[in-house]
Amino acid sequence: MSTTEDTVRNGVDTAQLYGTLDAVKADPTIARFQFRARNHWIGGAHNRTVIRDFYAANQEDGSRTEEFVLDAGEPAILLGTDTGPNPAECLLHALAACLTTSLVYVAAARGVHLTEVESTLEGDMDVRALGLDDDYRNGFTQIRATFHVAGDATEEKLREVVERATKRSAVFDMVTNGVPVAVRVETA
Amino acid sequence: MSTTEDTVRNGVDTAQLYGTLDAVKADPTIARFQFRARNHWIGGAHNRTVIRDFYAANQEDGSRTEEFVLDAGEPAILLGTDTGPNPAECLLHALAACLTTSLVYVAAARGVHLTEVESTLEGDMDVRALGLDDDYRNGFTQIRATFHVAGDATEEKLREVVERATKRSAVFDMVTNGVPVAVRVETA
Repeated sequence: MSTTEDTVRNGVDTAQLYGTLDAVKADPTIARFQFRARNHWIGGAHNRTVIRDFYAANQEDGSRTEEFVLDAGEPAILLGTDTGPNPAECLLHALAACLTTSLVYVAAARGVHLTEVESTLEGDMDVRALGLDDDYRNGFTQIRATFHVAGDATEEKLREVVERATKRSAVFDMVTNGVPVAVRVETA
Repeated sequence: MSTTEDTVRNGVDTAQLYGTLDAVKADPTIARFQFRARNHWIGGAHNRTVIRDFYAANQEDGSRTEEFVLDAGEPAILLGTDTGPNPAECLLHALAACLTTSLVYVAAARGVHLTEVESTLEGDMDVRALGLDDDYRNGFTQIRATFHVAGDATEEKLREVVERATKRSAVFDMVTNGVPVAVRVETA
């Protein structure tokens, strides 16, 4: 087998993965990252986020050649015109994507070749909170994620990989434990 | 002025807004919503979420004529090929979008005509957590959101609208307070 076949697993270069971990061990300051998003309102429930630059390894990372543009909206029943998924659905996307990537990276590190990862996420919300009744929380009361995972490992091993992925997922951590958010306002 | 000019403010039909709130008051069971996302892994850090159907007002809502497709990825330094924003950036998008929509709806309800809403969100992360050191959390340690808001109201009033929006935003609630997430695994 070539070196590439040896080191790339699930589309993840494990040699680079271990190299990165070694580099962080040697100099923990490179582990400080900052991610960013810029949003502007277009009209009604329609707004747009642009994502590109970020800070990593002691410098601005300019490796991205294009920006990512994400539109948000609301369905008719929530007074929008479906200009994009709604913000709560975007949070489900963030969670699904992070758990999936974590799962794929953990599997790569543990020598598990995956053939399939699919997930369905559901979030329950009582919209009485949205202006009517302080007894109901605004966000989801509960999120359920069902993962379908297949690969060259025992069921026990695959379940271990998912378990480990939940412990390493940045968004799973944030969504389950919360993050302090400071909101500053400028008016003009 | 026509009825439309009277009731549509910031692109939000306030007559419909109050109608919805009255309908929920009359029958709180219609306030139970369920939002969903389906994700599948494509390779490496690339995965894709499809969003369309949801449950609202005691039935499946079939009003959306198209599905929304969102790709996720990682930049090179995190072993990806920039197939989309990364999951933590998607969470910032969800938060920015939800605060913005809440702000626009609150302003509409309070008679404030907005001319501009822009925001920049930053999240700080120490990637030592991602496989190396349990002393660091996986998610952002802190998120900062800066809103630039302009409209036909005093600075005090605009600040009140933003303050109220943070109290009514579903994603702000989830990101700051956390949500229980149940993960189920199926293998094959």
